Amino acid sequence: MTAAVHPDRLLPADPAARRVARDLYGTVAAAPIFSPHGHVDAALLAADEPFTDAASLLVTPDHYVTRVLHSVGVGLAELGLGPDGATADPRAVWRRFAEHWQAFLGTPTRLWLEAELTDILGVRTPLTPETADAVFDEVGARLAEPEFRPRALFRRFGIETLATTDDPAADLAAHRALAADPAFDGAVLPTFRPDGYLDPALPGFAAAVERLGAAAGLGTSGYDGYLDALRSRRQHFVDHGATAADHGPPDPGSAPLPPSDAARLYQRALTGGLDERDAAAFRRSMLFEMARMSTEDGLVMQLHPGVLRNHHRPTYRAFGPDTGHDVPLTTTYAAHLRPLLEAFGTDPRFRLVLFTVDETAFSRDIAPLAGFYPSVYIGSPWWFLDAPEAMLRWRAATVETAGFYKSAGFVDDTRAFCSIPARHDLARRVDAAYLARLVVEHRVAEDDAARVLHDLVTTLPRRVFARS
Amino acid sequence: MTAAVHPDRLLPADPAARRVARDLYGTVAAAPIFSPHGHVDAALLAADEPFTDAASLLVTPDHYVTRVLHSVGVGLAELGLGPDGATADPRAVWRRFAEHWQAFLGTPTRLWLEAELTDILGVRTPLTPETADAVFDEVGARLAEPEFRPRALFRRFGIETLATTDDPAADLAAHRALAADPAFDGAVLPTFRPDGYLDPALPGFAAAVERLGAAAGLGTSGYDGYLDALRSRRQHFVDHGATAADHGPPDPGSAPLPPSDAARLYQRALTGGLDERDAAAFRRSMLFEMARMSTEDGLVMQLHPGVLRNHHRPTYRAFGPDTGHDVPLTTTYAAHLRPLLEAFGTDPRFRLVLFTVDETAFSRDIAPLAGFYPSVYIGSPWWFLDAPEAMLRWRAATVETAGFYKSAGFVDDTRAFCSIPARHDLARRVDAAYLARLVVEHRVAEDDAARVLHDLVTTLPRRVFARS
Amino acid sequence: MTAAVHPDRLLPADPAARRVARDLYGTVAAAPIFSPHGHVDAALLAADEPFTDAASLLVTPDHYVTRVLHSVGVGLAELGLGPDGATADPRAVWRRFAEHWQAFLGTPTRLWLEAELTDILGVRTPLTPETADAVFDEVGARLAEPEFRPRALFRRFGIETLATTDDPAADLAAHRALAADPAFDGAVLPTFRPDGYLDPALPGFAAAVERLGAAAGLGTSGYDGYLDALRSRRQHFVDHGATAADHGPPDPGSAPLPPSDAARLYQRALTGGLDERDAAAFRRSMLFEMARMSTEDGLVMQLHPGVLRNHHRPTYRAFGPDTGHDVPLTTTYAAHLRPLLEAFGTDPRFRLVLFTVDETAFSRDIAPLAGFYPSVYIGSPWWFLDAPEAMLRWRAATVETAGFYKSAGFVDDTRAFCSIPARHDLARRVDAAYLARLVVEHRVAEDDAARVLHDLVTTLPRRVFARS
Repeated sequence: MTAAVHPDRLLPADPAARRVARDLYGTVAAAPIFSPHGHVDAALLAADEPFTDAASLLVTPDHYVTRVLHSVGVGLAELGLGPDGATADPRAVWRRFAEHWQAFLGTPTRLWLEAELTDILGVRTPLTPETADAVFDEVGARLAEPEFRPRALFRRFGIETLATTDDPAADLAAHRALAADPAFDGAVLPTFRPDGYLDPALPGFAAAVERLGAAAGLGTSGYDGYLDALRSRRQHFVDHGATAADHGPPDPGSAPLPPSDAARLYQRALTGGLDERDAAAFRRSMLFEMARMSTEDGLVMQLHPGVLRNHHRPTYRAFGPDTGHDVPLTTTYAAHLRPLLEAFGTDPRFRLVLFTVDETAFSRDIAPLAGFYPSVYIGSPWWFLDAPEAMLRWRAATVETAGFYKSAGFVDDTRAFCSIPARHDLARRVDAAYLARLVVEHRVAEDDAARVLHDLVTTLPRRVFARS
Repeated sequence: MTAAVHPDRLLPADPAARRVARDLYGTVAAAPIFSPHGHVDAALLAADEPFTDAASLLVTPDHYVTRVLHSVGVGLAELGLGPDGATADPRAVWRRFAEHWQAFLGTPTRLWLEAELTDILGVRTPLTPETADAVFDEVGARLAEPEFRPRALFRRFGIETLATTDDPAADLAAHRALAADPAFDGAVLPTFRPDGYLDPALPGFAAAVERLGAAAGLGTSGYDGYLDALRSRRQHFVDHGATAADHGPPDPGSAPLPPSDAARLYQRALTGGLDERDAAAFRRSMLFEMARMSTEDGLVMQLHPGVLRNHHRPTYRAFGPDTGHDVPLTTTYAAHLRPLLEAFGTDPRFRLVLFTVDETAFSRDIAPLAGFYPSVYIGSPWWFLDAPEAMLRWRAATVETAGFYKSAGFVDDTRAFCSIPARHDLARRVDAAYLARLVVEHRVAEDDAARVLHDLVTTLPRRVFARS
Repeated sequence: MTAAVHPDRLLPADPAARRVARDLYGTVAAAPIFSPHGHVDAALLAADEPFTDAASLLVTPDHYVTRVLHSVGVGLAELGLGPDGATADPRAVWRRFAEHWQAFLGTPTRLWLEAELTDILGVRTPLTPETADAVFDEVGARLAEPEFRPRALFRRFGIETLATTDDPAADLAAHRALAADPAFDGAVLPTFRPDGYLDPALPGFAAAVERLGAAAGLGTSGYDGYLDALRSRRQHFVDHGATAADHGPPDPGSAPLPPSDAARLYQRALTGGLDERDAAAFRRSMLFEMARMSTEDGLVMQLHPGVLRNHHRPTYRAFGPDTGHDVPLTTTYAAHLRPLLEAFGTDPRFRLVLFTVDETAFSRDIAPLAGFYPSVYIGSPWWFLDAPEAMLRWRAATVETAGFYKSAGFVDDTRAFCSIPARHDLARRVDAAYLARLVVEHRVAEDDAARVLHDLVTTLPRRVFARS
């Protein structure tokens, strides 16, 4: 048995704390999974085609994995990425991965992959450079079985609700098909992700806006038309079950422009005539408008700001986005969000979940905001911070100010379908470990801790991410 | 017995570390309380009126409590705040509080309140929504007894020195009365808090300055008169036993202006003619002047910068300041304080205690400055950071650079009178826990740890906060 | 026996974790020391003169020590610094130090010094104000023995490779002498440290450049000549065994200027005509040029940015630099390093080790960059952060994103020769403690942990700091 699948993994070393943590974890280990933010494609479940092999299931599409391999010297094309990657032999990709398996020691990616290989795929052979082929073959055989198709796994994972991330112009056909399919009883909900339609600094803004107008069937010839088209597409998402809109701007600025100024900048943005400063002003004003629309249509606003995307542009040009070189930026929230929160922060129809990859904001900005505004919830540690040590830091930095009941529940944010249960399991273990320490240090009573853990896993996500 | 009052609460889980921590804590558990910074009103002790009920003792006046309740959806007026709150029934307020008691799990406020209810008020019934009325009645009965009046509690709490926070124009009559009262033998000292008199960006600056001149009996018609009035009021505070001046500017900038520039800005400030930039320049220059006056009159400079006050202005307008929506700002100290420290940092007459609510400054700015300048001391974790996990992070982030002997001793900073002993007790437990770990990891000898803890609780606060 | 020399010091309190940590530590405790960055003078080993006394060995030359003493009120001249210090009696210095020995409790400096006194110098008397003289005499006697001369200690410390820090204009005679000396078989390598030659904002830039040209025998009359002189001096260092260039700019900006602009700024810099902004632009462009040269000559780029040097200029004027008042600055890396990394970040000839004293950059900037770019390695915690708690925070903040295999190995960065083995020992203990916790929490298998620790101590430093 490898380390990662020990039944007590991630529980505290101290024997008394471990006993408490084990009991706490046991109460939620099998709870259904509520996944309010992720990047799995609904078409995967609609089509329900079998996965083909270990490399294209676990390595090539997961930038958490390819990034680490790249960092130790493996080229992205060797891993199946980019135009040259299309011809890469999956077995060769898997061998490269196995060769550098030790590079993942200490990372959550290794823990997830070990759990996936062992718990989901039933592989008992520990992965080493020598066993790479055997493991590849074993996984391949397993994936050919019907119970390893996407829908069967969806059921086995115990997923109650899965939110995807979708383009505002998307038709959402796969979501519609799944909802209409009597053979599929899971909830797969779209999420409205309009970044590319709100930020004139992003490439292709004008074309995006045109697509939006076409999708809305309204046109977007003026600023009001543009707002109407956004409103219409949000409604389309609501009609398909969406409960949230997701926003990932470079900063959480939210100062609204006077409508006439916004209209003027909008027109200039369409012809590419905005400088950096004006583009940012327009983008921030649009975040304010999105908050306003959220109060109207009830879509929960998820805010994930502060990432410098595609840091290495040569790699971006060769391999596209999401190839492992997005880097967090220093991010502050208090002043940036003031306009938005002064306008909507105490509105009972509004809900805002704040995420960050700059963890200095946990205790300084996010917990104090969530500790006052009834609309504001603390998003779980995300991306680089979706990891045991970072999760413990996050709890320690936010609970003392805002309590447990202003956190929003775990978000897996993954495009690696099979990592969903492994990620939720890890989060549950870490929360059990955190609470167990509070119990043995006589800071929280054990029955209170059990109630909190249940609420973190079940009650809070259902409540926070429901459309208001 | 509830969790919070376990005799070993907050001590480490590891049995060996707990034994050491228990022994260490035992040596300081009953030590007198030195409280060099807080917001209790001296009039409370001068008048010595009985407290009336649990809600107006523990809920309504404490923005640590009302903030959390607001964050889970309770309106501030329901809690007795604002003009509409005046008519709120204390029992109804208490019920609302009890209903949301679980929102406080994991926060220090819950630990303090549990200790207050149990240790001070002798309530044995655990608080739940169902027991709210019983607890309210039990507390009410207790508060009617003579040994629960403010002065009796002051004695029972073992308070050696209590510093209040006072307006520079204040007459300090209550302090005078207490000092003159042979029946009261505690030390209740005023603290000079001149923010509103130094920052032209704050509302009412001109009126404040006029009040100052009137109080000083000097007038403040020119910049020199203004400085004289400040000097005179500081002396008034010194004459009433003050040992410190307390400063809470938005940033710790301290660049002095040439006197003629300062005089010019001063005149324009009185007519409201300063823009943001000039107002900040004047405010920073005045921090420098305050440091200069501290070297002259010996008042210890306490510096608590970096808070965006009244984030939600609609709430501010309806309910006033200190209603739970002050939010920390990114704060750096090294460059900001350079002018002040180059001028006074090695002056033996000067003492500066640096606080922060941006904990990134602990290891980056504050510990390195305190680890060189003999005048600089590290203020204890304050406000949002006055909590077990934050305290442990603070020690871990500062001791390795500056040792234990450049920390200033615990500051409760509270307006909740009954939380004073609970807050000091919590800090002592956390320091015992921190030291115990160093002992069992053979990093500090046990007798050294005991000496350090004694000095942290007793020697250092007395020395650091004494007028130089 | 004092606390610091307990065989289990710094290992975790939990008994199971301690057993694992002790086993892990045992496997690397005696491994040779690879020291790729430090400030010991090669002449110390070339001359091999005996050390004279405890104060001039352990106190006066170590700003980690004098800084703390200064912070508790001891003047630097009393400690033997500055022109007045030259006449200070070493025994009196030592007494002042012993008097304030408790100020060091909880600092790594105390742990290092205890290990030096006990393990290296064989002192069994615990240091107290009362035993100061006895310890001083005991150390003095020891230092007179031949086995306490620098070269004998170098062998006894098990130093495999020691890199010094050297001026680009330096002749490197001591390095040459050591390499040519058949009686000395250690590797003592120079490191190219060109800050003073790249930053026109530093005093004496023009003179430095002239020195550089003279040393290169090339002259530096134009920008191209200046670049040639730099290239030539780098080659001189390569010829003397250097494997690295070390850079300590105020920020890690790296935007290259067009050559004609750089040439123009260079000419103006020589006559002192650059304002702050232009000086920074030139300095940043030169960091880019240094990276380019590193790809050509293989010198590993070590980058230690973000320090405000000589914070208290009166002390600087009286006592010179490196006197304990350098203070960290807020430092970000992602945007600053983008130009450099886009150009050279995936070049197999380039290697960049990133250090910081602003620990907010660990998880936000440095680990994500090292987790993608094959050229980028994570420098060990440096200066104020070279301490047990900070090291644990560093591992916890970087490993989850970048694994263990993108860290660069421990760097002692010391000018205190005898602290070298104590510092490396401390780092090995802390890594063993970190890994042991992962083992007992079933996050890493024990045999994997042992392999990782061996690689951290031996394989990685040899590989990362070798000239590419």
